[in-house]
Amino acid sequence: MAVYTEVDDADLRAFVAGYDIGDLVSAKGIAEGVENSNYLLQTTAGPWILTLYEKRVAPADLPFFMGLMQHCAARGIDCPLPIRDRGGVVIRELAGRPAVIVSFLQGMSPRRVEVGHCEPLGAALAHLHMAVADFPMRRDNALSVAGWRQLVEQSRPRADEVAPGLGDEIAREMDHLEPRWPRDLPAGVIHADLFPNNVFFLGDRLSGLIDFYFACNDVLAYDVAICLNAWCFEPDLSFNATKAIRMIAGYRQRRALGADEIAALPLLARGAAFRFLLTRLYDWLNTPSGALVKKLDPLEYLRKLRFHRSVRSVADYGV
Amino acid sequence: MAVYTEVDDADLRAFVAGYDIGDLVSAKGIAEGVENSNYLLQTTAGPWILTLYEKRVAPADLPFFMGLMQHCAARGIDCPLPIRDRGGVVIRELAGRPAVIVSFLQGMSPRRVEVGHCEPLGAALAHLHMAVADFPMRRDNALSVAGWRQLVEQSRPRADEVAPGLGDEIAREMDHLEPRWPRDLPAGVIHADLFPNNVFFLGDRLSGLIDFYFACNDVLAYDVAICLNAWCFEPDLSFNATKAIRMIAGYRQRRALGADEIAALPLLARGAAFRFLLTRLYDWLNTPSGALVKKLDPLEYLRKLRFHRSVRSVADYGV
Repeated sequence: MAVYTEVDDADLRAFVAGYDIGDLVSAKGIAEGVENSNYLLQTTAGPWILTLYEKRVAPADLPFFMGLMQHCAARGIDCPLPIRDRGGVVIRELAGRPAVIVSFLQGMSPRRVEVGHCEPLGAALAHLHMAVADFPMRRDNALSVAGWRQLVEQSRPRADEVAPGLGDEIAREMDHLEPRWPRDLPAGVIHADLFPNNVFFLGDRLSGLIDFYFACNDVLAYDVAICLNAWCFEPDLSFNATKAIRMIAGYRQRRALGADEIAALPLLARGAAFRFLLTRLYDWLNTPSGALVKKLDPLEYLRKLRFHRSVRSVADYGV
Repeated sequence: MAVYTEVDDADLRAFVAGYDIGDLVSAKGIAEGVENSNYLLQTTAGPWILTLYEKRVAPADLPFFMGLMQHCAARGIDCPLPIRDRGGVVIRELAGRPAVIVSFLQGMSPRRVEVGHCEPLGAALAHLHMAVADFPMRRDNALSVAGWRQLVEQSRPRADEVAPGLGDEIAREMDHLEPRWPRDLPAGVIHADLFPNNVFFLGDRLSGLIDFYFACNDVLAYDVAICLNAWCFEPDLSFNATKAIRMIAGYRQRRALGADEIAALPLLARGAAFRFLLTRLYDWLNTPSGALVKKLDPLEYLRKLRFHRSVRSVADYGV
């Protein structure tokens, strides 16, 4: 749920007039993209998305994100295409914030993940990894091991408010993962947040990937591990190996997974669960209760983390 | 800010397939209509609005609201037209709630009311009052004098938490208004909530009226008085007589105001300010601080109420 910034209608009309996208006929704030304010614009030429970047997206990162979406869209990835204004500019300003108009993508995010979603998801992820191989820009992953250490230190003192013993458990997990974290696997630009709400389907067809604002350079198989966490658990948090098998099979249709990447999956999945546990825990402890943001339950990821910890080999994922 | 109910995408596709409105290609929760969940649907035939009615709208009132919008739309009022499904049904069910699809209206609500908005607003209000003259259904105004008395009693004990002396002030106001409230003025169906966020403009042209969910039978001039409150004060809460003059002039283009209606305006405006003070006060005292609803400041309407109380004659409104 979002829309933090209200935009004056006259300012908005003037802003849209700077583009060759038809005349503005409507603008609705939409509940999409937790970190930014998003408006669905209707113009005489059709629908478009306007995003105002709130403080969690660093303005210095915007050229990377815009370049990445342009690069991907040009290579056939169904992702939002940033639109240039009449002067060729992509990143403009509206209501005191960086503002971008992107193309509208058809489709809806699945509220319930079905097995049938997982193969197209894996294929789209691999397609993305192949498409960005020649993307020239770079962005470090602020939410990898060094960032986790910081989050552990910030949250540990109050973590037991969320679950007894959680403070010690995250400290132990950190100590386990840090020295073992794989660094020599094939790397590139990853999406890093490809949850169901960031993937659109039209019926069974995957029609779009959105929300590239965590994209960064990291190990490619880590993106697979994030999707294992985000797509392959049931609402009761049991692991669904069929979903994992389909997702990985879909991935392999487009990109081969090396033996080293496969062997690393349990550890990568454990790290991915830990990353979302840590950020949710931090937000849980630090978001004022009156904020218009839905707090996500950190314990969901604690349970996923414990599952990955129990895995004996990659065969437990069905691979 | 709204969207309370999340809808499963498969359920939504099946729901939309029941209508002859094209194939569903997208659905976004929109931040519009405080009381209900609203989705902007895109189909192959264009945009539509899906509303799920939350508990503040009584299901028994829905036939009145739907009939009213159909009646108005048929008489040339730019308002949402409820769409019949393939079986001719308007009020259906989705996600366990009454659900209706209505036509999409172009335009945007003004964030800042300009003088230029007020004449078209008055004209549209009068047009509405004329159009509903032969509407056969009836709905009492639950938020008129009897309802105020109830709200006063519920809020008085804690009203001083909001402003010192407020409890006594609302009790005195109630005692003043109750015996004097005009009942013999021309009556009919009024919108009763025609705030700027419920009126769309495309440039200078008024393009739509929405949110008929407070519409009811009452004195027509009371609707004018509500608009005096909602449109004719500046952000610093000073009264802008120019806006009032234009609004009333616009109204008179379409419907004559009788001498009795004009004479009653100061009292009606006072009552209208009191009504919004009371409901905001009640919500202020009774909404949990974590709720995803923006609480509106009751003191804004206390100040407006005091202004109307200071008015000596209708000439102070510029009439």
